[in-house]
Amino acid sequence: MSGNVDIKRLSLNQITTENWSLREAIEGCVRHDIPSISVWRHKISEIGLKESKNMIKASGLSVSSICRGGMFPAVNASERETRIEDNKRAIEEAAELGTEVLVLVCGPSPNKDLQESRKWVQEGIESLIPFAEQHQVKLGIEPLHPMYAADRSVITTLGEANKMQRMLGSRQVGVIVDVFHVWWDPFLYEEITRASGNILGFHVSDWKVPLPDIFKGRSMMGDGVIDIPRIRQAVEEEGYQGAIEVEIINQDIWNMPGDENLQMIKERFAACV
Amino acid sequence: MSGNVDIKRLSLNQITTENWSLREAIEGCVRHDIPSISVWRHKISEIGLKESKNMIKASGLSVSSICRGGMFPAVNASERETRIEDNKRAIEEAAELGTEVLVLVCGPSPNKDLQESRKWVQEGIESLIPFAEQHQVKLGIEPLHPMYAADRSVITTLGEANKMQRMLGSRQVGVIVDVFHVWWDPFLYEEITRASGNILGFHVSDWKVPLPDIFKGRSMMGDGVIDIPRIRQAVEEEGYQGAIEVEIINQDIWNMPGDENLQMIKERFAACV
Repeated sequence: MSGNVDIKRLSLNQITTENWSLREAIEGCVRHDIPSISVWRHKISEIGLKESKNMIKASGLSVSSICRGGMFPAVNASERETRIEDNKRAIEEAAELGTEVLVLVCGPSPNKDLQESRKWVQEGIESLIPFAEQHQVKLGIEPLHPMYAADRSVITTLGEANKMQRMLGSRQVGVIVDVFHVWWDPFLYEEITRASGNILGFHVSDWKVPLPDIFKGRSMMGDGVIDIPRIRQAVEEEGYQGAIEVEIINQDIWNMPGDENLQMIKERFAACV
Repeated sequence: MSGNVDIKRLSLNQITTENWSLREAIEGCVRHDIPSISVWRHKISEIGLKESKNMIKASGLSVSSICRGGMFPAVNASERETRIEDNKRAIEEAAELGTEVLVLVCGPSPNKDLQESRKWVQEGIESLIPFAEQHQVKLGIEPLHPMYAADRSVITTLGEANKMQRMLGSRQVGVIVDVFHVWWDPFLYEEITRASGNILGFHVSDWKVPLPDIFKGRSMMGDGVIDIPRIRQAVEEEGYQGAIEVEIINQDIWNMPGDENLQMIKERFAACV
């Protein structure tokens, strides 16, 4: 099944070990020879940016991305400005931790007008571009599965993300391909081709039937229906050779002893990605 | 909110009163002056087609559609043939009950190759066209929400359904627009325009946050985030003036006394559709 992807591309997206602190996640990666990590901001805030930076530096891990910026739509203009300010802090954190990529979960609509919210997303990202350039951080628009359209992101397909990337017309902005969010899309492979050169991240997990939960709905690679190797190969053909983040939001996986979790991740990464 | 839709367009999709038999649902509609019903095949099979036909005829209700045909993909060719035969029975039932529309839930993929399954769907529908013509029954491709891609339908957007309708090139085939399945789609209004003249049904419910369940995830109109009147008006502008089916799969609504359910449906239909 797998095309024998290099284990050196494995990155632990920290939400996969949600019960661990940043320190525990870093130590786990080191113990299991996982070379990189994607860091979540709520974990940074537990110990502060300086301490986070020092720990990561001492560990030798590279940081594949920071999760997450975004959440742009709000009815009130001053509230939208507050969100943009928060995104600037996220960009600073990304720069400080030495990663090139800030993942954007664009946010839900505060009302029933999705088109207006999509416009606010685009305006929000546009206003961040100069700041992101200064900090040498790229902004990765991550389309989320349409089942999260009402509460997490009005950007639901790679087609939309690509369209927005083109309209923004900046190489500072790219897209993130997460198999859980996009696997079902009949235009997936065309849109991966269209994203050529702009892919900033590739995330893996699986879609198990029945889905265990809506928010905590992802499963370990190999336990579901997604043709992960095919999507990976398509992304690679368009020039993405960077880290592959394992991002699994799932209560049962969170409840596993962290070391067993990382061991299984490595096995499944080798066998199913 | 509502554009004051005519109550005469209200149709009870029978799954909304899942705890009722066909007889109870028919009697409920008559009691509440609901002029039409969409009948499910598992309810027909409880009492037989002849008895179902007689009851409907005696009630004076019109039948807006039969739910459901479809489920085309299967690895084995003889199994696909069996599914097509079952669809022929569904077409016969539709003809017998005097409805023009068989709703197609196209089916999930038996493997990880979604493209192949979409091809089987198209071949399955194509093979049914002559039989559907003979029986004067139209085949309505219903795109389902992408969260059902793994277990119910590989056809997930109105764009795909339109594309398939065009490739089949027959006026015997059209599309069904169900707001729960399509509301999130950034290309929704363009695709409704593209479906002009081919819309065979319009279904309403709502998307509540948090979603109560995945399969039983729909809510009463007005309880969620969907801009139902806007979608209805778009569908009407493209020529659809037929029945509006209320189709709510939700355990709490199923647990309500049926008469309270129908009363609420009528109120919300007037206020929120």
